[in-house]
Amino acid sequence: MIKLKSPTLLLDKSKVMKNIEFMALKAKKHNVGFRPHFKTHQSLTIANWFRDFGVNKIAVSSIKMARYFANAGWTDITIAFPVNILEIDEINDLADKIKFNITIVSLESLLYLEKLINSNVGFFIKINTGYGRAGIRPTSIEKIDSILEKSKDIPKLDFKGFLTHAGHTYKAKDRDTVLTIHEDASGKLAILKNKYKVKYPELIISYGDTPSCSIADNFEGIDELRPGNFVFYDLMQWNIGSCKLNSIAVAMACPIVAVHRRERKIIIHGGAVHFSKETIIFKNREIYGIGADFTSNGWNKLDEGIILTSLSQEHGIISASEEAINKYKIGNIIIIIPVHSCLTANLMQQYITLDGEKIDHMSGQKI
Amino acid sequence: MIKLKSPTLLLDKSKVMKNIEFMALKAKKHNVGFRPHFKTHQSLTIANWFRDFGVNKIAVSSIKMARYFANAGWTDITIAFPVNILEIDEINDLADKIKFNITIVSLESLLYLEKLINSNVGFFIKINTGYGRAGIRPTSIEKIDSILEKSKDIPKLDFKGFLTHAGHTYKAKDRDTVLTIHEDASGKLAILKNKYKVKYPELIISYGDTPSCSIADNFEGIDELRPGNFVFYDLMQWNIGSCKLNSIAVAMACPIVAVHRRERKIIIHGGAVHFSKETIIFKNREIYGIGADFTSNGWNKLDEGIILTSLSQEHGIISASEEAINKYKIGNIIIIIPVHSCLTANLMQQYITLDGEKIDHMSGQKI
Repeated sequence: MIKLKSPTLLLDKSKVMKNIEFMALKAKKHNVGFRPHFKTHQSLTIANWFRDFGVNKIAVSSIKMARYFANAGWTDITIAFPVNILEIDEINDLADKIKFNITIVSLESLLYLEKLINSNVGFFIKINTGYGRAGIRPTSIEKIDSILEKSKDIPKLDFKGFLTHAGHTYKAKDRDTVLTIHEDASGKLAILKNKYKVKYPELIISYGDTPSCSIADNFEGIDELRPGNFVFYDLMQWNIGSCKLNSIAVAMACPIVAVHRRERKIIIHGGAVHFSKETIIFKNREIYGIGADFTSNGWNKLDEGIILTSLSQEHGIISASEEAINKYKIGNIIIIIPVHSCLTANLMQQYITLDGEKIDHMSGQKI
Repeated sequence: MIKLKSPTLLLDKSKVMKNIEFMALKAKKHNVGFRPHFKTHQSLTIANWFRDFGVNKIAVSSIKMARYFANAGWTDITIAFPVNILEIDEINDLADKIKFNITIVSLESLLYLEKLINSNVGFFIKINTGYGRAGIRPTSIEKIDSILEKSKDIPKLDFKGFLTHAGHTYKAKDRDTVLTIHEDASGKLAILKNKYKVKYPELIISYGDTPSCSIADNFEGIDELRPGNFVFYDLMQWNIGSCKLNSIAVAMACPIVAVHRRERKIIIHGGAVHFSKETIIFKNREIYGIGADFTSNGWNKLDEGIILTSLSQEHGIISASEEAINKYKIGNIIIIIPVHSCLTANLMQQYITLDGEKIDHMSGQKI
């Protein structure tokens, strides 16, 4: 086993490969496109692992990330984030080089683009299917029509279809709730598709969110799956029911720096700058992670006696069961499954595989 | 004014200089040492600004940070974090080169160090004055004595004194509560000092936490101030009463990508990977930031009509007042005071001054 001595984000490559295969096969089975969202891993190496499964188009969440992957040879990229019109130069530049789609959430942004766009760009209209973060309600036909009408004046802009992120599945507490949200969201999109496909026979429905894509088995009316988190999964997804524990492909390894046996607390080097301060509610407590047993096969069993209950900048405090407190001592490494793998990976800036290989992350590069 | 187009961490250098001067003068006035904690800024450039105020000894929170500043010429460093015995090679290496202190929270760690330490290292015993994160209770005289006794067997280890971080001041809601905690914590340390100074006449009391150091005006019995956050302050400190708004030296500048006038919501590019998910309770709401007016003199007035109420990975959602919602449109830049400047700076990886100069942060370096 590899030697660890400071907070480290471990990556189990075999689990990553299984997760990619699972989603790629699912998309194939349902005859829908697969455009994985790379904001979760943000890694050129892991990006290449997707190639083995026939992936050649991706989604990202910023122009910075789009440029990063375009420079590494990815030629079909959608920014699944409302267009930032201040970055028009970067948009023109990228659209000149690759097949490039942006996301529109209002007529206003089109008025700016009309004046400034000078390369061919595809656009999706983002539909708010209930999450309420960004996008146009599926019933706001007037707004959708005004955007489509305006886009006819902008020959460089090409309407690609409707895109949604049913992010309210993240608030679900079980698989049935996820399925109910998914059916509702995909139903709303099906109505839109039927309405607009007469005028735009090529339009596609691009559908995101890991819980829906993991759990659902009916993608009627959907043309493209765009999940991101599934490549690693995490405690949040496990808590929702999107994955089994042994599908979670990343875990934090943290050194123990103090053990308070009487208070049943373990202090680790592993804080907000490692895990992020994302939480879930687990058994009525707000928590930052749960421990796992670590063998030569990685982590395959949770240890619910190890609950990460508090984080400051560099410290983590674990509430330990009677059994757990007697198992660990200072100088040991403890394995914690993080709540939100995307945020943890972004903070850790790199991954270490179980074989000790370093895997890159965009946040660890000088760009 | 500088041109901004993507999420940017702005730094007002004049405010930083005033904050450093304020704390340096305070230490001088009270005739105590000043060992600022550099975990907040983690910047070699900002570190150099401290030199102008006579600072030549610092605190950090990890061996990685200690090496980073040692490599840049800092020769007197305390790691104010429980020693991680797995990093013994790095400790020996650093102690060989500079004046170097570690923090001890248990006898156990001494038993390891006894076998492995081969360079001269100073050590502080961390005292838990009520925060409850790490350290030995001031009344646990037996534990303290056992550590001091054991340390006599380890000639390379030199007892320097007691160190505390009264971090429970962060939970205070007003200045009086901070002062009460400070009086209690410093009183406990004074008792320890009196007890041990007979045997260890050189021992010092090293005292951290920005709220106490900012608000208190009685440092009787304390020999060294070790605050960190004061260099920037933030919304959390402002909310406690540690600083005025115009002492906050960093602010996030975020592009507006959507405005929902009816729901009075503004969507910004600025999410958990920019701000961190640290929150405070402000007027009974859990929030991630508050807006501020931005003029050529920086930010000097809060706009409580702009409240950052929700963050996902890249998106932020602002709840806006009637007045605020009419003031902003897409393509504008909005200024948000972050809740916790240390975590925001770590994520943003660099600062941009009001003159447009880039300032380094350790997390943006390949090391």
